Amino acid sequence: MIKSTGAMLTGHSCLFTVWAPFRKTVDIEFEDSGLATTPLKKDEFGYWSKEIPGVKAGTKYRFILDGKAAYPDPSSKAQPDGVHSWSAVVDEHDYVWGDSEWEGIALKDLIIYELHIGTFTPEGTFESAISRLDHLLTLGVNAIEIMPIAQFPGGRNWGYDGVYPYAVQDTYGGSEGLKKLVDACHQKNIAVILDVVYNHMGPEGNYLAEYGPYFTGKHSTPWGKALNFDDAYSDHVRAYFLRNALMWLDDYHIDGLRLDAVHAIIDHGAYHFLKELRQSIDELQIKNRKRYFLIAESELNDVKIMEPYEKGGYGLDAQWTDDFHHAVHTLATGEYNGYYQDYGKVEHLAKAFRQGFIYDGIYSPFRKRTVGSNPQAMASSRFVVCIQNHDQVGNRMLGERPVELVSFEMLKLMAGTMLISPYIPMLFMGEEYAERHPFLYFISHGDPDLVEAVRKGRSNEFKAFKWKGQVPDPQAEETYNRSKLKWDFHQDPEQKALFTYYQYMISLRKQGMFSAFFERHVDTEVHEQQKLLIVRSKDASPGIGILLLVLNFSKETQHINMPA
Amino acid sequence: MIKSTGAMLTGHSCLFTVWAPFRKTVDIEFEDSGLATTPLKKDEFGYWSKEIPGVKAGTKYRFILDGKAAYPDPSSKAQPDGVHSWSAVVDEHDYVWGDSEWEGIALKDLIIYELHIGTFTPEGTFESAISRLDHLLTLGVNAIEIMPIAQFPGGRNWGYDGVYPYAVQDTYGGSEGLKKLVDACHQKNIAVILDVVYNHMGPEGNYLAEYGPYFTGKHSTPWGKALNFDDAYSDHVRAYFLRNALMWLDDYHIDGLRLDAVHAIIDHGAYHFLKELRQSIDELQIKNRKRYFLIAESELNDVKIMEPYEKGGYGLDAQWTDDFHHAVHTLATGEYNGYYQDYGKVEHLAKAFRQGFIYDGIYSPFRKRTVGSNPQAMASSRFVVCIQNHDQVGNRMLGERPVELVSFEMLKLMAGTMLISPYIPMLFMGEEYAERHPFLYFISHGDPDLVEAVRKGRSNEFKAFKWKGQVPDPQAEETYNRSKLKWDFHQDPEQKALFTYYQYMISLRKQGMFSAFFERHVDTEVHEQQKLLIVRSKDASPGIGILLLVLNFSKETQHINMPA
Repeated sequence: MIKSTGAMLTGHSCLFTVWAPFRKTVDIEFEDSGLATTPLKKDEFGYWSKEIPGVKAGTKYRFILDGKAAYPDPSSKAQPDGVHSWSAVVDEHDYVWGDSEWEGIALKDLIIYELHIGTFTPEGTFESAISRLDHLLTLGVNAIEIMPIAQFPGGRNWGYDGVYPYAVQDTYGGSEGLKKLVDACHQKNIAVILDVVYNHMGPEGNYLAEYGPYFTGKHSTPWGKALNFDDAYSDHVRAYFLRNALMWLDDYHIDGLRLDAVHAIIDHGAYHFLKELRQSIDELQIKNRKRYFLIAESELNDVKIMEPYEKGGYGLDAQWTDDFHHAVHTLATGEYNGYYQDYGKVEHLAKAFRQGFIYDGIYSPFRKRTVGSNPQAMASSRFVVCIQNHDQVGNRMLGERPVELVSFEMLKLMAGTMLISPYIPMLFMGEEYAERHPFLYFISHGDPDLVEAVRKGRSNEFKAFKWKGQVPDPQAEETYNRSKLKWDFHQDPEQKALFTYYQYMISLRKQGMFSAFFERHVDTEVHEQQKLLIVRSKDASPGIGILLLVLNFSKETQHINMPA
Repeated sequence: MIKSTGAMLTGHSCLFTVWAPFRKTVDIEFEDSGLATTPLKKDEFGYWSKEIPGVKAGTKYRFILDGKAAYPDPSSKAQPDGVHSWSAVVDEHDYVWGDSEWEGIALKDLIIYELHIGTFTPEGTFESAISRLDHLLTLGVNAIEIMPIAQFPGGRNWGYDGVYPYAVQDTYGGSEGLKKLVDACHQKNIAVILDVVYNHMGPEGNYLAEYGPYFTGKHSTPWGKALNFDDAYSDHVRAYFLRNALMWLDDYHIDGLRLDAVHAIIDHGAYHFLKELRQSIDELQIKNRKRYFLIAESELNDVKIMEPYEKGGYGLDAQWTDDFHHAVHTLATGEYNGYYQDYGKVEHLAKAFRQGFIYDGIYSPFRKRTVGSNPQAMASSRFVVCIQNHDQVGNRMLGERPVELVSFEMLKLMAGTMLISPYIPMLFMGEEYAERHPFLYFISHGDPDLVEAVRKGRSNEFKAFKWKGQVPDPQAEETYNRSKLKWDFHQDPEQKALFTYYQYMISLRKQGMFSAFFERHVDTEVHEQQKLLIVRSKDASPGIGILLLVLNFSKETQHINMPA
């Protein structure tokens, strides 16, 4: 009943399939006048399809619905003229991979580097990113996490406004560009995690509703009507996203997916989409003899998403653990507005060291309700922690990175806290050398009303934080350009020193120096007044002994009595 | 932080507590001019309280919010003048119970009789229901399930429009009346299950939103904004319903709760309300040395609600299994419209016999999506089945019971199918003697616009079923009176014979004659053309042997070869 959708090249012809259950006719039209407009044929579940000869990679097409308007393909693999225009056929099999030696990295060994293709390099492309991989090798990280690259409106976007889940952003270098980057990473022993958005569609260029019930009025999200994971026809919508996930892993050799805001994937049915997703990937693992990671962003602190199937869980591998970031950030900066009001004590960080989630079934003053579940049965490798990421930096009004907020010594303390922690560390691009340029929120929408709405929405979001100053214009190209990494750190002694510090700490981590913490058999000693935290491993590591960590978040030198 | 709300008599005074976190003032006002209007005092979580001397059982009061309008107490235990007027203080401790010998009944032994207090007897009260308990004893059932009795508008309502979860409907006999009925049941060894509605509030007389964020715009239900189980302030709303459940069990000696439409209790947090509810009741069980049942109505066919906590489940005891009803109903009546289109084959009933859920992860043509999860690990006592209930009868346009739809022989076949089945049987009042009067939908709202909206809504609901004729007016007293049981079955040989048949089958069930089916180690043989189902136990029962059930849903006599 469910069919694969999109354009599939098969020798000398191409099979086009699209799901549009309520449409009376669907025709395919080509930019090339040599190819005739042709009606597709419908099956009983609403899939329209037709095999058409003479189509090759690059052929541009679109669908005409009910003989009226023409729209791009929801499963388009390329939008060379942007989100509103022709889709193009892509040949998935014309790339020759060179990564057959790649063996992958175990979850627990990951040291992740989050990057945004458009601002990671001056050129903002996959290809230019390849030229910086040696920098990452020198730094010591072993995985990159790429912010979403599904086609979005214009050329400037964080990626969460993507509207073609199957199409790789053309301005980044499209499908082939991504493959080259992944291939290059693997040849340098770097894993690739891709950030994918299955909880909403961007506000511009999203024509899914023209095709079928991709959305449901049963649930709402902060971004409008929810994607339809549990209402009538949801089997087809679920399959659309499931196949998308499998495509990245299978066709693009991606090692893992970071699932954006899974709390907004609303599914009240008996078989949760996240579990179905993980189980579909389990099957692919067997086929490909490879392990794929699923890492969730979730605001619920609910271990259910990671618990094994037999415990009723969804079996995901890990989740972002914002609690850790907020505990470090508030201690380091003294900022307590907005959601930071739930943090700020040394005890918070101590609890994060002991068990990951701080909100584990306790009352959150900011959310005004009890939040979370007990994480103690989860291995430390199930929690991804950071001291900055695109959200925590970019959702500040001025996009300041910690270097603008704290002293150089505090920067090192923050970095050390993360890198020694029992959890999977994730750096945000530029963090390793204290990039001083901001990471701002930027868009390049085509619709002026939408641009205005985004400007207003951003301003409103900042109110709780009481930041002062002018909000940078998200639509301005200047805002985008200011957000690019500058890569000039070799000129600056502090920046250079910080890079060396990151290198050193990462190398110690890789040597297993901190692994006595990994099982979280730790004692914590909290000195709230002195802003001092002492963490001590209960077990000694062979050849290393007891691990003792002293974190001084105050500005004063402090003397402590070494525990026996 | 959470307080018990309502009026609590303590010797010579009464402690009033109400949650109204956003109100600037809350005063209490009394009908009795001898009691002065008094301001309540607010705590940091928004609970207002005051102990007031001179208050006794029956004292009428209400709260004045922000010095403006006065409203009844959301935790009112009596609304002697209806849903819009004064609340009254109830003394929970002035009733002398006589049920200390009552030991309860095991879940697996339940034979339930669903009844609606207003139409079970001509008088429509708890007291008059007591006079019919001997009839139930003669019939052989051992539990009654009372449709909701929380205070609703007017005197005629199924109960799902209740707006004071803590107040017992005054026209039924109020708090004391309910206690007398429960007490009488227990003295006759009949368990009492109460139907409670925690998924919505009725449309008239619901003043909860005046008091606080009892509802959330985050989710919606078929009845409007959802009750707030997971948004800001939800801890207090959850506690309001948790305490309500505990009140029925502890103060009213109720043996179990039937939870209405749990799929509409929307909770995306890490600790689902249903699990918290079951765990709160676990504690009460220890205190009272008694087992309480939680039986859910759920449209999801999701075993999660019944699975043990360690499997990620909510631990509820059982759930209504509509699949069984629909399989029997379609075979018996030949009706295949509306949701009945998903049933109608002998194989459906065979699958129901084998495992309970028919929709266990398969595609439902009516819902147009995959529905359900695998129930095979669940004991047969976790499924409550029926061949009629208030919904299946009362949601028909003309409220016809099966006696109006099928032959007398078919009626017996339907009854036998249910009573021999591995599941907990539930009869609907009057079913045991083929009551010929309908059970219609009735209301007695005070608001003419609402009445009109209900009339229209009902008509729309019937469209999918293509029933012919005039929709009875839900608001007419005549509609209510027509729905009352007539109790005249002793005059009619067929009705009398059916009663004897029910008696006999129930008595065989109680003797364990059908228990070879209980573990569902059964073979089924389906003869689709002949509308014939053969169910055979794999294991022999001691002293009984192999159980063989032959169900002939056709109108013809059929000859079968007895299996070896």
